[in-house]
Amino acid sequence: MSDVRSIAQLAKQASGILSQLTTEQKNHALLQMAAALIKEQDSIIAANQLDLEAGRHNGTTESLLDRLALNPDRIESMAEGLRQIVELPDPVGDTLEETTRPNGLFIRKIRVPIGVIGIIYEARPNVTVDAAGLCLKTGNAVVLRGGSAALHSNDQIIKVLKSALKSSSIPLDALQLINDPSRASVDEMFKLIGVLDVIIPRGGHSLIQNVVMNSKVPVIETGAGVCHTFIDDQAQVTMAEAIAINAKVQRPSVCNAMETLLVHEAYAAKHLLSLGEQLKNLNVEIRGCSATRKLIPWANAADEEDWSTEYNDYILSVKIVANVDEAIAHIQKYGTQHSECIVTENSDHAVQFLNEVDAAAVYHNASTRFTDGFEFGFGAEIGISTQKLHARGPMGLPALTSTKYIIHGNGQIK
Amino acid sequence: MSDVRSIAQLAKQASGILSQLTTEQKNHALLQMAAALIKEQDSIIAANQLDLEAGRHNGTTESLLDRLALNPDRIESMAEGLRQIVELPDPVGDTLEETTRPNGLFIRKIRVPIGVIGIIYEARPNVTVDAAGLCLKTGNAVVLRGGSAALHSNDQIIKVLKSALKSSSIPLDALQLINDPSRASVDEMFKLIGVLDVIIPRGGHSLIQNVVMNSKVPVIETGAGVCHTFIDDQAQVTMAEAIAINAKVQRPSVCNAMETLLVHEAYAAKHLLSLGEQLKNLNVEIRGCSATRKLIPWANAADEEDWSTEYNDYILSVKIVANVDEAIAHIQKYGTQHSECIVTENSDHAVQFLNEVDAAAVYHNASTRFTDGFEFGFGAEIGISTQKLHARGPMGLPALTSTKYIIHGNGQIK
Repeated sequence: MSDVRSIAQLAKQASGILSQLTTEQKNHALLQMAAALIKEQDSIIAANQLDLEAGRHNGTTESLLDRLALNPDRIESMAEGLRQIVELPDPVGDTLEETTRPNGLFIRKIRVPIGVIGIIYEARPNVTVDAAGLCLKTGNAVVLRGGSAALHSNDQIIKVLKSALKSSSIPLDALQLINDPSRASVDEMFKLIGVLDVIIPRGGHSLIQNVVMNSKVPVIETGAGVCHTFIDDQAQVTMAEAIAINAKVQRPSVCNAMETLLVHEAYAAKHLLSLGEQLKNLNVEIRGCSATRKLIPWANAADEEDWSTEYNDYILSVKIVANVDEAIAHIQKYGTQHSECIVTENSDHAVQFLNEVDAAAVYHNASTRFTDGFEFGFGAEIGISTQKLHARGPMGLPALTSTKYIIHGNGQIK
Repeated sequence: MSDVRSIAQLAKQASGILSQLTTEQKNHALLQMAAALIKEQDSIIAANQLDLEAGRHNGTTESLLDRLALNPDRIESMAEGLRQIVELPDPVGDTLEETTRPNGLFIRKIRVPIGVIGIIYEARPNVTVDAAGLCLKTGNAVVLRGGSAALHSNDQIIKVLKSALKSSSIPLDALQLINDPSRASVDEMFKLIGVLDVIIPRGGHSLIQNVVMNSKVPVIETGAGVCHTFIDDQAQVTMAEAIAINAKVQRPSVCNAMETLLVHEAYAAKHLLSLGEQLKNLNVEIRGCSATRKLIPWANAADEEDWSTEYNDYILSVKIVANVDEAIAHIQKYGTQHSECIVTENSDHAVQFLNEVDAAAVYHNASTRFTDGFEFGFGAEIGISTQKLHARGPMGLPALTSTKYIIHGNGQIK
């Protein structure tokens, strides 16, 4: 039996115990974990130094090194994340439906933990703490498989968190780290049907595609966002500009940032040049359709590939469309069903857009940057699902649960 | 482009239109479909004769031929199924959650169709009608891939249903049949990421396993049920006997029938022989553990494989256990998380069993045979999910929907 399988089976055994714990027992453990991170932060920072040195040695970019780096502030923020999870309501045990049938059967549908959750992620060591906290709060065992860049950091973080579990009701085996950077360890996870109940990938496009294409274990797909903002002919100019600029530049590296701006031809004729100038001053490169390039002379030409590219950068593709129908058709063809926005004062156009655009989150007169578990009021987020099964859009704690029917009878037979 | 892909892409194009139809438009189409089945029944029965002749020629068993055979009564029952779907509430558009955030964003989570649903199934032609009706009612396009035994029947049924759609608002392309019995056509469906949103297999173990193991498209696993009944020491004897006998023999071929009986040693010592005699009189073969064989001399020996076998037949494995803990441990080891039952008057034992057994449906003092969308009051059933994501247990119309967040703002930026 491979190491990966035996590690996951330990998690599975622990999941039975974990599923029966009270909210108080789980919250106690989360607070112990937060305290241990603070108390043992020197050991974590020392381990993180080893990763940073290896990263520098390998020529890792400064921005990646920055994501990887830990310091007392960042460790405090990881600990604070755990304390915030303590404050959230525990969805496990909630009754979702109940009914008494004519034959007297009393049927209740309740929330239960999923069981064992696999998380495959990249460099940021804060995901290690965050995912562990969210899974344990929902009564799930977790098998974490972090990226090679954070090997030492993750190893030490898990040691510290496990030491905290010793004085809690949570079995130590509920928290597992596969600290093997080889591709083989991921491939092994993909085969663990019946051991892992779900795999959630968190990271870039190629990581997510590898999981979606190769896992035999069910996957919750997260991530890719080719998000659009459509400025209608009946948009308020100041609102349209504020929303478009915010959606593009407030944080271009994230999945809910805008990648393509669609502009009604009537709006474009009057106002696109001004918006283009504002974007230029914010260092945004514009790649436009031919009509756009007539209005914005410095725009580069967008090619077919641009319309489906998630730049995650200060680059924006711009297309001029004849009407809301053409905007919707473009989004259906090139979008990733993540977050889409219409800016308009015309309520018919808004309703049509909101109804017909098929995406996890569709906005009328607000920036796509709000697609986020915290902004939606969930108090936490394990990721943003871009698939249609189980969970769609930002996933809070309930997305980490399954359900179970409990049926009380008094001898009913069929 | 393969035929299968181009067929599925037609369905995808139609799904956009379908998702915007009103309940009245969909109900009208379902009634047209029901009427057409009755009106055109001669053509369907004639096509069915070709399948039955081919089946006899190939040496198909009588029980399979019986499942395949259509007659006016069975066609009326297919039509009645469609009429019943008309009566069910349409879940599409339902608001599941709504909230206004401190920044004024008004966020609604609503039910939307999944999109395009693939159904892979075996001989019964009634599944063709049933799946088409359930998918269309929920605004989903459907790609059906039936078994080779029903080629002519399915082809004619779909022709009749499509002719009915001509006088409805539903685009004809929303209903697709892949009438290619080759394995290649199924393999092609597995690759249709981005075209099919989900595949639901309906059929025997090997069909389901093929889909689960090979589909790149997300799957809702249905089916296999190694269901247990545990008779506790504090069970009422008449109730325990009635439940156990019902769970085994009322319809042994289905997934919610009991396959293994677990009996508390104290109950067994007093009452197992009598139950064994009743089962014998009902032609049930018993395969027992060694303790069982001491009490029921005619029982055959159960081997390790028996405990995880879904007989779907007049065969029952029987194990004597020391207590509820041992019963639960056996179920966790050998069960398929479908339907499990405890018969007891001891409420502590009942609560422990209901909480600790991890299955879609867990019963106290009622037969496992009730795990069924109709018995649960859903009015329909597309299958019984034995996985933990998206839907678990009997799936009614809401299981054929996804969700979407609709957000109204007035210029909010982050």
